[in-house]
Amino acid sequence: MGSTFGKILKLSIFGESHSPAIGGVMEGLPSGSTIDSDRLHVFMQRRAPSTHVSSTTRMESDSVEFLSGVLNGKTTGTPLAFIIRNSDFRREDYSDISSVPRPGHADYTGKIKYYGYNDPSGGGHFSGRLTAPLCCAGGIAIQLLEKEGIRVSARIVRIGAVTDVSEFCEESAQPVPIKMLDEIEKARAEGDSLGGIIECSINGLPAGLGDPMFDGLENTISQAVFAIPGVKGIEFGDGFRLAEMKGSQANDAFCVNDGRISHLSNHAGGINGGISNGMPVVVRLAVKPTPSISLLQQSVNMDTLEETSISVHGRHDACIVPRAVTCAEAACALAILDAILLRRSEAYGH
Amino acid sequence: MGSTFGKILKLSIFGESHSPAIGGVMEGLPSGSTIDSDRLHVFMQRRAPSTHVSSTTRMESDSVEFLSGVLNGKTTGTPLAFIIRNSDFRREDYSDISSVPRPGHADYTGKIKYYGYNDPSGGGHFSGRLTAPLCCAGGIAIQLLEKEGIRVSARIVRIGAVTDVSEFCEESAQPVPIKMLDEIEKARAEGDSLGGIIECSINGLPAGLGDPMFDGLENTISQAVFAIPGVKGIEFGDGFRLAEMKGSQANDAFCVNDGRISHLSNHAGGINGGISNGMPVVVRLAVKPTPSISLLQQSVNMDTLEETSISVHGRHDACIVPRAVTCAEAACALAILDAILLRRSEAYGH
Amino acid sequence: MGSTFGKILKLSIFGESHSPAIGGVMEGLPSGSTIDSDRLHVFMQRRAPSTHVSSTTRMESDSVEFLSGVLNGKTTGTPLAFIIRNSDFRREDYSDISSVPRPGHADYTGKIKYYGYNDPSGGGHFSGRLTAPLCCAGGIAIQLLEKEGIRVSARIVRIGAVTDVSEFCEESAQPVPIKMLDEIEKARAEGDSLGGIIECSINGLPAGLGDPMFDGLENTISQAVFAIPGVKGIEFGDGFRLAEMKGSQANDAFCVNDGRISHLSNHAGGINGGISNGMPVVVRLAVKPTPSISLLQQSVNMDTLEETSISVHGRHDACIVPRAVTCAEAACALAILDAILLRRSEAYGH
Amino acid sequence: MGSTFGKILKLSIFGESHSPAIGGVMEGLPSGSTIDSDRLHVFMQRRAPSTHVSSTTRMESDSVEFLSGVLNGKTTGTPLAFIIRNSDFRREDYSDISSVPRPGHADYTGKIKYYGYNDPSGGGHFSGRLTAPLCCAGGIAIQLLEKEGIRVSARIVRIGAVTDVSEFCEESAQPVPIKMLDEIEKARAEGDSLGGIIECSINGLPAGLGDPMFDGLENTISQAVFAIPGVKGIEFGDGFRLAEMKGSQANDAFCVNDGRISHLSNHAGGINGGISNGMPVVVRLAVKPTPSISLLQQSVNMDTLEETSISVHGRHDACIVPRAVTCAEAACALAILDAILLRRSEAYGH
Repeated sequence: MGSTFGKILKLSIFGESHSPAIGGVMEGLPSGSTIDSDRLHVFMQRRAPSTHVSSTTRMESDSVEFLSGVLNGKTTGTPLAFIIRNSDFRREDYSDISSVPRPGHADYTGKIKYYGYNDPSGGGHFSGRLTAPLCCAGGIAIQLLEKEGIRVSARIVRIGAVTDVSEFCEESAQPVPIKMLDEIEKARAEGDSLGGIIECSINGLPAGLGDPMFDGLENTISQAVFAIPGVKGIEFGDGFRLAEMKGSQANDAFCVNDGRISHLSNHAGGINGGISNGMPVVVRLAVKPTPSISLLQQSVNMDTLEETSISVHGRHDACIVPRAVTCAEAACALAILDAILLRRSEAYGH
Repeated sequence: MGSTFGKILKLSIFGESHSPAIGGVMEGLPSGSTIDSDRLHVFMQRRAPSTHVSSTTRMESDSVEFLSGVLNGKTTGTPLAFIIRNSDFRREDYSDISSVPRPGHADYTGKIKYYGYNDPSGGGHFSGRLTAPLCCAGGIAIQLLEKEGIRVSARIVRIGAVTDVSEFCEESAQPVPIKMLDEIEKARAEGDSLGGIIECSINGLPAGLGDPMFDGLENTISQAVFAIPGVKGIEFGDGFRLAEMKGSQANDAFCVNDGRISHLSNHAGGINGGISNGMPVVVRLAVKPTPSISLLQQSVNMDTLEETSISVHGRHDACIVPRAVTCAEAACALAILDAILLRRSEAYGH
Repeated sequence: MGSTFGKILKLSIFGESHSPAIGGVMEGLPSGSTIDSDRLHVFMQRRAPSTHVSSTTRMESDSVEFLSGVLNGKTTGTPLAFIIRNSDFRREDYSDISSVPRPGHADYTGKIKYYGYNDPSGGGHFSGRLTAPLCCAGGIAIQLLEKEGIRVSARIVRIGAVTDVSEFCEESAQPVPIKMLDEIEKARAEGDSLGGIIECSINGLPAGLGDPMFDGLENTISQAVFAIPGVKGIEFGDGFRLAEMKGSQANDAFCVNDGRISHLSNHAGGINGGISNGMPVVVRLAVKPTPSISLLQQSVNMDTLEETSISVHGRHDACIVPRAVTCAEAACALAILDAILLRRSEAYGH
Repeated sequence: MGSTFGKILKLSIFGESHSPAIGGVMEGLPSGSTIDSDRLHVFMQRRAPSTHVSSTTRMESDSVEFLSGVLNGKTTGTPLAFIIRNSDFRREDYSDISSVPRPGHADYTGKIKYYGYNDPSGGGHFSGRLTAPLCCAGGIAIQLLEKEGIRVSARIVRIGAVTDVSEFCEESAQPVPIKMLDEIEKARAEGDSLGGIIECSINGLPAGLGDPMFDGLENTISQAVFAIPGVKGIEFGDGFRLAEMKGSQANDAFCVNDGRISHLSNHAGGINGGISNGMPVVVRLAVKPTPSISLLQQSVNMDTLEETSISVHGRHDACIVPRAVTCAEAACALAILDAILLRRSEAYGH
């Protein structure tokens, strides 16, 4: 349980930070869909550590090898499997984690859950490295969505104390504002780390996607997005600010636009009753600060039950938010594509 | 799709606001579990409209009839089905919704999704009334959890501009503070409505519950909680405030307490890597203002595509937050009980 | 787990032989589908005991009450729930089953599985009575399939020593041949019972339905059909006779018929690689003799662990095969309709 | 859809006959389970072509590479992924299949299903080669079952006209009787092929495994076993012979054996109401003759819609039954292990 997502488009992710390879299997991809490997590589590089200042010094080429499900650049319709080799791994860096858990990581919970048999190196299956297969699968989903005129784009709206107050701009791969980079660099210099807020917008969605109650777009996007390590909150449209608003302010009134029904505002983030209403779906994610910091923290030796202190060295990001932007797009795209495929079955008889 | 939740404990909810009955089927409940009908009734009455000031005047006894799966007050282990008859329904109140959708409701999205065949009366399957079977199922889950020493309790921390700054108190069924009731009454008098924030705490959980990536506690609690109409945001632990914190502030350091590993703080809300760490699981939900307001709003006649205005009369709450508190407890309990049942299979060989 | 079937069209069945009601919830039915209640009633009556000679004397009107999901005779698209009240139940008939299990029934396995908390009366959830909701759901599925030109029809090809050697006739609701009725009557007079073989044919299917490996039509039809109590074998096309044939005899050669690709024979029963090939899907089921017989059988008192003997009185069929014919059609129809709905998602982009 | 199996133990299989690799992902394996790679290799070699007389001349070492989920020879509890490289593949052998389908294969149905985008070489994802990952996963399951004292063993009971009338012998890896090998050799010499019947017995199962209705052991074993290409029928216990028996002959009377409840016979094949009764679970499979034969067969050119003839050369088995024996054990073991893991959740509170 855990590493599988989707109802029609089923994604199964595997691997550990320091296993021979990580990867995924995608079942339910429509046949005959073109996969542009070059664009997929560009998308995945946005997540890759090497392209980010203030990022981990672990170098991974993150080159994807397709094992099945693709023929002449098109999906066959049968399971598409891909792997990414872990080339630059150093088990010794994490040799002591198995007894002294790093605060804020899953070292402790993973050990309890798997009765001590989990792979502790680099967080094992809990590592942020597992977002590479997530981005590979999501990058494929994005390519399919684009053919339907659906665009998924995320940006950073806050890092630490710095907020971006600019208008929303529907464009992917926007550069991180200088002020935010400075904020990150400052935290790194202190041996500390930062979190932030990401906003993801999905434009061009038709109305009618999603299901009531437990399988609304809010439910399924949440299920996908909380797979990104460090995400601790999600809101749609005006989200938590809705708690302070009145109904007359929060409701999105209807209007007619170019002969089609539309809305005068988008406080609901494009979703009513779990179902898309034709407005952009707007999602915001809270990302906690990277738990790996070199500052001394109190921990416990799980074998001896003695309190001790730990300073996390090794290679890690002072702020993962810039890299998580790509992950957010990937996770949202997977949820949306699955909803679109499900929607097909409803058209039966219509 | 949509109205089914859970992996081991599967809940299927059915009904419409004005169908003959609403109800649910619970599959996977362990056999031999005692169901205290009286306490279940008390729990469900906390959600029921009649018990809330400023609430809808629709009167429903919400009495549960068990159809199967219970024998001599104990679960048989086979599917437990229950229904709640809809006694006080008035289809005429909603006769015009099918052409003029109410802003903020699922009238429009439901019509698109179901190609015009959905039941529009009172929102049909999207009605808040469907939280009655959710609370019935959740109330049963709560009774099972209590036997494991797990307590689920929610309270209101904000309604409109009024916030509750008191310490967290682990007690269910706390009365709504007077100031909040006044705030609601004021909005009602204006023909308007209010939203708020609910905090739910799950205490007594063992460490090790939940799965990595897509089936962590955050993912599954979110899937359950977004089934409550009006919820537009969720956060765990310090949630969105984590975006402003540094790693050194956000990490929960380990300590030894009474010979057991514990944490010095709970910024993570009891969850690391999707898995419970033994601290209370703390969830906060943003609930939007009730969309039903008597103030005039702009809408569109879906048949003629002409803009028009609508004032929502009928019976509705000026603020559903007080009733949603019970729903939050129910939804969280279902997610947690399912995680506990799943956990059993992992103990294989240990 | 257990009483839920389907991927897009999800059916959840509940109830016990002597619970207040039995029923089902169907999720994923396309909206706007007409349900002809009269024809559904006729279909269900084919299963009902009252209409069969040599059948149980338990009288049940089996009238279906729709609780949700139907409006003006058409599906709304949201969960369709229905119940059938158990009117004629007599718990006392089965008072001793809880300690002395009936051979061939699930009394013993049910008690073990549910740790003694299962409802033993009439077999509880394992009762053949649970095929009433199966037939209700399947009858609805058949009505939808008919609109696509797909016909599901089953007949008895063997009861005890009597076989039907007539040509296949694609017609539903064929009368049971007199010789078979005589055979049943003879067994009943001896206090014994009989089994038989049912053949079900699904005509008018397009090629391309079903999925490879674990979700082929053979896999999913089997999953549906083994839900009928007493079914102990299933075969497709020539089935077990294929073991005696050579490849040159067993292969279905291709031909062109009216400008379309077809086959010269149908040894494969319309399925290759789990996927329909356009020929009729032919399924044969082995049904064991009714385990309830009045002849003395050896059993064990589960409380005292003493061997004892049991003669099963109460009301039961000397041969359930005539009634199981309808169940076979229902189960097959559910599997096929689900495959058709799944197929829609594959058409994405084509 | 299609290549995924299991509820707790989820297996996802991928690959094509001539893709770079085939493999699988197993999620839900209990942590800390020892995997004996040498014994797994021996198990898989029983399926491998090289070890069978009269088998395909395609040589594959079938060596398994574990990519994740195993550490120091034990499962970590997180997804276990493995691949098997396709070394000896020759796409040219199948260059004409894409237009002229081989009778009895999935060439035609695969092309329809995937709109012509499937990989036709060697049957692509429908190839018998995909049973290699099935056997790898099943071989792992068998090792876990053995620790519980559960043994899965299959043997051939019929090939063509030759039947094995010997007593059941609970032993895995029994040699194929000489008479059967002669029968196969004779068919091969004629350019033809043979099918047969495999019997699989699962010994040492506790009573209480499996679920009612759609998830009984019969349903789930069927779902697993029909994943083996060529299986066209399945029966449990006396299966189709039960159709000719009377209740007094077919029922398994209870007895007390060594102070424990047992049965005097096993006509039901160890399953009542879908649930194991403590007797050996006995499954028999009908396997059709290998469709690949060199004798001329009629087919159709799918591009030109002209009838033509085809003689299937390339490398293939004259009878796959000897190799399918291992696959049957693997498929049954996966279904049983999943049922055992599910059973754990039922023990809640007991």
